[in-house]
Amino acid sequence: MKALVLEQKDELSLRDFPAIDHAEQTLGPRDVRIKLHTVGICGSDVHYYTHGRIGPFVVEAPMILGHEASGTVIEVGDEVATLAVGDRVCMEPGIPDPNSRATRLGMYNVDPAVRFWATPPVHGILRPTCVHPEAFTFRLPDTVSFAEAAMVEPLAVGVHAATKARVKPGDVGVVLGAGPIGLVTALSALAAGCARVYVTDIAEPKLEIAAALSPAIVPVRAEGDALVSRVHADTDGWGADVVFEATGSPGAAAGVFAPLAPGGCVVMIGGQPEPISYDAGAAMVREARVENIFRYAHAFPRCVAMLGSGAIDVKPLITRTFGFDESVEAFEIAASAPPSDVKMQIELPQ
Amino acid sequence: MKALVLEQKDELSLRDFPAIDHAEQTLGPRDVRIKLHTVGICGSDVHYYTHGRIGPFVVEAPMILGHEASGTVIEVGDEVATLAVGDRVCMEPGIPDPNSRATRLGMYNVDPAVRFWATPPVHGILRPTCVHPEAFTFRLPDTVSFAEAAMVEPLAVGVHAATKARVKPGDVGVVLGAGPIGLVTALSALAAGCARVYVTDIAEPKLEIAAALSPAIVPVRAEGDALVSRVHADTDGWGADVVFEATGSPGAAAGVFAPLAPGGCVVMIGGQPEPISYDAGAAMVREARVENIFRYAHAFPRCVAMLGSGAIDVKPLITRTFGFDESVEAFEIAASAPPSDVKMQIELPQ
Amino acid sequence: MKALVLEQKDELSLRDFPAIDHAEQTLGPRDVRIKLHTVGICGSDVHYYTHGRIGPFVVEAPMILGHEASGTVIEVGDEVATLAVGDRVCMEPGIPDPNSRATRLGMYNVDPAVRFWATPPVHGILRPTCVHPEAFTFRLPDTVSFAEAAMVEPLAVGVHAATKARVKPGDVGVVLGAGPIGLVTALSALAAGCARVYVTDIAEPKLEIAAALSPAIVPVRAEGDALVSRVHADTDGWGADVVFEATGSPGAAAGVFAPLAPGGCVVMIGGQPEPISYDAGAAMVREARVENIFRYAHAFPRCVAMLGSGAIDVKPLITRTFGFDESVEAFEIAASAPPSDVKMQIELPQ
Amino acid sequence: MKALVLEQKDELSLRDFPAIDHAEQTLGPRDVRIKLHTVGICGSDVHYYTHGRIGPFVVEAPMILGHEASGTVIEVGDEVATLAVGDRVCMEPGIPDPNSRATRLGMYNVDPAVRFWATPPVHGILRPTCVHPEAFTFRLPDTVSFAEAAMVEPLAVGVHAATKARVKPGDVGVVLGAGPIGLVTALSALAAGCARVYVTDIAEPKLEIAAALSPAIVPVRAEGDALVSRVHADTDGWGADVVFEATGSPGAAAGVFAPLAPGGCVVMIGGQPEPISYDAGAAMVREARVENIFRYAHAFPRCVAMLGSGAIDVKPLITRTFGFDESVEAFEIAASAPPSDVKMQIELPQ
Repeated sequence: MKALVLEQKDELSLRDFPAIDHAEQTLGPRDVRIKLHTVGICGSDVHYYTHGRIGPFVVEAPMILGHEASGTVIEVGDEVATLAVGDRVCMEPGIPDPNSRATRLGMYNVDPAVRFWATPPVHGILRPTCVHPEAFTFRLPDTVSFAEAAMVEPLAVGVHAATKARVKPGDVGVVLGAGPIGLVTALSALAAGCARVYVTDIAEPKLEIAAALSPAIVPVRAEGDALVSRVHADTDGWGADVVFEATGSPGAAAGVFAPLAPGGCVVMIGGQPEPISYDAGAAMVREARVENIFRYAHAFPRCVAMLGSGAIDVKPLITRTFGFDESVEAFEIAASAPPSDVKMQIELPQ
Repeated sequence: MKALVLEQKDELSLRDFPAIDHAEQTLGPRDVRIKLHTVGICGSDVHYYTHGRIGPFVVEAPMILGHEASGTVIEVGDEVATLAVGDRVCMEPGIPDPNSRATRLGMYNVDPAVRFWATPPVHGILRPTCVHPEAFTFRLPDTVSFAEAAMVEPLAVGVHAATKARVKPGDVGVVLGAGPIGLVTALSALAAGCARVYVTDIAEPKLEIAAALSPAIVPVRAEGDALVSRVHADTDGWGADVVFEATGSPGAAAGVFAPLAPGGCVVMIGGQPEPISYDAGAAMVREARVENIFRYAHAFPRCVAMLGSGAIDVKPLITRTFGFDESVEAFEIAASAPPSDVKMQIELPQ
Repeated sequence: MKALVLEQKDELSLRDFPAIDHAEQTLGPRDVRIKLHTVGICGSDVHYYTHGRIGPFVVEAPMILGHEASGTVIEVGDEVATLAVGDRVCMEPGIPDPNSRATRLGMYNVDPAVRFWATPPVHGILRPTCVHPEAFTFRLPDTVSFAEAAMVEPLAVGVHAATKARVKPGDVGVVLGAGPIGLVTALSALAAGCARVYVTDIAEPKLEIAAALSPAIVPVRAEGDALVSRVHADTDGWGADVVFEATGSPGAAAGVFAPLAPGGCVVMIGGQPEPISYDAGAAMVREARVENIFRYAHAFPRCVAMLGSGAIDVKPLITRTFGFDESVEAFEIAASAPPSDVKMQIELPQ
Repeated sequence: MKALVLEQKDELSLRDFPAIDHAEQTLGPRDVRIKLHTVGICGSDVHYYTHGRIGPFVVEAPMILGHEASGTVIEVGDEVATLAVGDRVCMEPGIPDPNSRATRLGMYNVDPAVRFWATPPVHGILRPTCVHPEAFTFRLPDTVSFAEAAMVEPLAVGVHAATKARVKPGDVGVVLGAGPIGLVTALSALAAGCARVYVTDIAEPKLEIAAALSPAIVPVRAEGDALVSRVHADTDGWGADVVFEATGSPGAAAGVFAPLAPGGCVVMIGGQPEPISYDAGAAMVREARVENIFRYAHAFPRCVAMLGSGAIDVKPLITRTFGFDESVEAFEIAASAPPSDVKMQIELPQ
């Protein structure tokens, strides 16, 4: 079968890939086989392409990319009860050990044994079909397109962040960073009850995209104390109830408490390879709560339900679509980080 | 000054009312004086009119009605810092003792000493002006009309209910009862993150109003097990994450656990004068959490912010508006409970 | 093998029981085989003996009794990592489906598929050995005896109740009912932070046992308004922060809100076969939270840790110990409910 | 009246101090006048003595020291309802603005307007009498001595920390630092439900004091990875549920996540004048929650109740007592930080 293979750092090929592990293709009793339809390009896919590694995860053998996916069920295992052939679905890319302590406690995302698509040595799904557990495969309502469904994976990060923040209706939110994760977080924060969300970035085109998403999104240039001034002016000096750090920039992360209200919550979403600066005094006088999140758990069905009912609309975030045979070109464009693009997707032949 | 006075059960008059307590008219250093603009008619106003009492609160002397109000600041006390003459505002009708234990703990709504408009012996505000504490008076953004602002009081009940439920993004909600409180609760539940909300009622016209509010509202006739069947069919038998009881009917309240998912939450909003039936076994096998709410606390500024940003739209709920000189007629109509009306309001002369 | 068999209602025999399901005796790769040491007699065991059923669970074939147990590991499956032959252990009696939705969410106790010892048609463990999953078998520290370890099962109910109540340090607690579950709940509430716990019962000997457990336990005769008067007198009229209903009596349950403080929590522990009376008005003016609990989840290792460190001492609750050959007699005595007994246990031959 | 006056940095005198603000001595209707009995010496008192400032708070005029106090009510205001002359009491040293937003929300400790004893320019209470609001004065049960009552102030920090951590029964806790605050935090964590608490320090005598407080306290020398190794060995590699940072040392604070379990909570208690290093990656893979606390709120009555019932015993922490006329000497000794002392107290003449 043909797949988009990262041969090594800086080298992609769209080619036959016979070597995929037999186990990954064998249908167990609680598994389904899925024909892939749409796959989004994530920053981590691009990072493996351009750097060959993310932290401890190093690409040491050719690996298929892609982990944001939707498709159609084409075969079901003997014990599958909730899915049938022909169901349109999206899939959660990380599979934990069902018997681990973290999984039993309901926190499967922090199970160290989790196997995650396109994280070495696990292959991704830029390929025609895959086998996946029923429990991590979610049926789509008719109103959700394959393209929207392939957005569920990044959206799940935002929804998980807003859930951990315990957003209350009428909260004032701040999202630092207007990249794809920042934008799904802003949408999630609004869906979770924020009355309005201030979104910051250094790139003007990204702020324009943010502002177009909702009248309740207030774009603020990340410059000096512009954000703090604006939030204080709008809240009688009180501050924001929730601040989401979605830049992964140490500089931005160092200032998370400045716009925060007393009793407020900071959610750290952006990954930080090195220790960052933490203004403990500012955190203390506000009695800030800080939630550090890692991917998501139990969020996929929630995202599907919100897309289905119109509670969240991710369509404006899908800015470009490529055919499967344009995959390598798509990654090259993505690697150039065009400022007016949010999410690029690849459609597989049906 | 002219006011709408409930002389006694079944007898309303719009007349000069000189006898209002001097204390209620004296401007303290942290008070503002407000010219009233719009006042909504609440079921409790109507109940005092038709029954002369609500539980232990008995109308024993002529009392001015009305407690859902907006207006304009016309005078401010010496120490008022956040409001100015000319500000358009809405007001929270209950004033607690700032030194009570409940108030200090942040739960001023359960302070037994709270003084609440139009609850004997405290007068309401269907009158030209009133004096009110700055701390319970909230400035309106330009985008919020007086009519919408007079909806903040009932909306606050729904927002408080959704806050106490701790709605998570993507939850499935149920609201029993499509009266004014049921509808603001449905809107609040959606704003708080519900992917969709099933609303039940026995009256078809009310369900039609509910359905028109949002595509994410699913109207279900309150009949037999229609609700449970529908919720189970839509959730693979799992149930709803949150059930709001907003009918005040003992029969409806007896069935709150049937549509509830394991680990779900029931919020009791509707008042019940007598003990009701509680299906402890059904509550137990689901490990249900039950939140019993009383009015609201800290909800007004949140409601104003959500109306201002468009996160919630209450305009479709305002179905009829009367002039102040039509007040008595307005109450007579309200007392007849026309099924296609949600909220009636009275505008005072400006 | 010899086992204590409930042949049918009112008929117990200690006899060879060859018919036990093969599956229950087969050691899977993640299972351990355990030689039983001590088994407590629970009210539910006695109820099956005297009534032949509990709600929908009917004894239709001879069934081995017993589910509160400790013992020694005598064989381990191939993939067992945390236990070894010779380990002293206690066991959680209910095994859920690891793939159910409730289990994945961390609430395995509300999984309808759970198989629970001595709940028809699942056999209990008043027999020489059993096979059990590693994940539900817990190693004991040297400081915890087999007798104490066999108390972990009922203690887990109390600890789960106190956990769900979210007891805060310094809370005032009330436990209705001084039976075994009431007493472990009182100990758990104290361990969880209660400054003091009022325990009520109608039987004076039970109150004496309660009072002897801790100087922070205040026994109150369940009679008229004695409890409410006492709690109000001691709290300047504020009330108790947490009320645990552990009687299962509809009359006691009807009064749970009376001693409760504003913002307080009621935990319903005692099972109620029929709907009970719920004072919605009293619940509302306090904004009471009600938690309905079902058994426990994730509580066993916590209980073992607290017994090990001395944070909780259950030894005073073990009032009588029988040999395995006295099992039938032990059940007869237990069925007579001697008022000065809390927990009776049976020791198996080693 | 005679008082212990910090004239300026490094200069203390016990002398007549006539200049105290009239307002501080005038009895309002909701105030009580208190004859001081016992006053503890806090590290912040000593810091003002040796450094003349703490952060932005600078001693610019002679200031009376002391804020951990107990005494006897000798006069009550007209509206005082819950206290009477002769009541033995302890007092909360910080008085917020009752009308501030933070106070109304129940978080009065983060009100910037709070006036706190012995924080410039507010005088402390190492003097014969003071006037204090009824609402922040707490009656003592007979079983609580004046010395224990003067420990309520530091204990409140520990209880607040354990409350914010939301300790669950059976949690494993870690306290970094065995100074007075570390030790009250360890006691509070145990009282709040921890099965055991690991306490670290670099000073062996402090660890010995810690270990003597409870068999559930495990002392661990703060050296290399001794703590992490020990916690992992005892928890099958899982980690501690709660880690309390009570050293105020940037080095210790940098390592808070290493011993933490997945889903665990870190509480930052120790003040940090400068930004510290934050291991965002370690926090993320555990989905750590971080609570930053500032003093305490609503904790005094809880502490008094726990001392009264024996749930917490602070007597072993009181290691030395001085007469009022030895005050200057007491501060000199305290400034030398003798390693075997925890809390020194001063008794005023009665």
